[in-house]
Amino acid sequence: MKLQIYLAGPDVFLENARLVGEQKQAMCRDFGFEGLFPLDNDEDVGTDPAKIFRANCALMRRADLGMFNLSPFRGPSADAGTVFELGFMFSSGKPVYGYSGAQAKYWDRVTMGHDAHLDLHGQRRDREGYAIENFDLFDNLMIARAIEDSGGAFEAINEPRVASLAAFQAFIACLNVVKERAVRSAI
Amino acid sequence: MKLQIYLAGPDVFLENARLVGEQKQAMCRDFGFEGLFPLDNDEDVGTDPAKIFRANCALMRRADLGMFNLSPFRGPSADAGTVFELGFMFSSGKPVYGYSGAQAKYWDRVTMGHDAHLDLHGQRRDREGYAIENFDLFDNLMIARAIEDSGGAFEAINEPRVASLAAFQAFIACLNVVKERAVRSAI
Repeated sequence: MKLQIYLAGPDVFLENARLVGEQKQAMCRDFGFEGLFPLDNDEDVGTDPAKIFRANCALMRRADLGMFNLSPFRGPSADAGTVFELGFMFSSGKPVYGYSGAQAKYWDRVTMGHDAHLDLHGQRRDREGYAIENFDLFDNLMIARAIEDSGGAFEAINEPRVASLAAFQAFIACLNVVKERAVRSAI
Repeated sequence: MKLQIYLAGPDVFLENARLVGEQKQAMCRDFGFEGLFPLDNDEDVGTDPAKIFRANCALMRRADLGMFNLSPFRGPSADAGTVFELGFMFSSGKPVYGYSGAQAKYWDRVTMGHDAHLDLHGQRRDREGYAIENFDLFDNLMIARAIEDSGGAFEAINEPRVASLAAFQAFIACLNVVKERAVRSAI
């Protein structure tokens, strides 16, 4: 049986979403895996959000592991739908892998974009006064630690802005890690 | 046994996080519930992200249901850590409730803040060219549909900017829904 990998990410919002999905699935095949992409459900579910939701959950239940595109989306954190799915698959006890087209740490991203300052206690805060968490991680600690505790891995490789959301290079790096581990556990 | 409610949200990043947590826990008590707040773990876990993560997961496993502060945080979507936890608790089969201090739909929030435009196919896109999902929901469909499918509810009440992140009014509205349902199911 081929390892089935759920391909989560904001890729579905790209203008060439279907092509990006097909490319990632082809890459999965090159590694001997099967990639499950949310838009594969499209014909069955149409535009009914309840059906889309349930079809995505069914794909996640079918998958052996999840590979999550955690590139920042409309803010310093990953796409909300993707993060929901990360929590869903982690809670099911499956390994969750993350990858991103942006290498900067969360602290640096928020500090750069949100007029950070130090408060009287030396805590760094954004322009709204919200504390900026500083664990030297790429995003909120729940995301980073779930990947670690699940036995997954996280790969980030900076890509040119125009290509950054799909994060193909980091995606391939992540597939490499899964492949190495699959080979090692089969020996 | 009192109903135990996990209190998830970006409240932990507020300058008065501990006070906000205590106030929400007091409100839970007024309704006959027990509120579990992440900062309750603080003394045991210190600042080790692995310990914080596991302590939060343990609180979620202990809780009967989750109440999620989904007020927009550093962008048009809810806080990433909160959304992770929503996926975690939904996947465990527990009811998840959401509340927010901002009533606007996701579509409107992104359209206002991200230089939206129509592409040649009539799809609305943000300044990066990413499609803006339009399901008349308050955030990404995975979040909204999980709440619905879990048997939970979502309450949003606009609050003055200075008080909006804690979203106390919507929180109380949400407690009211849980209370009504608890009473009805006990009859």
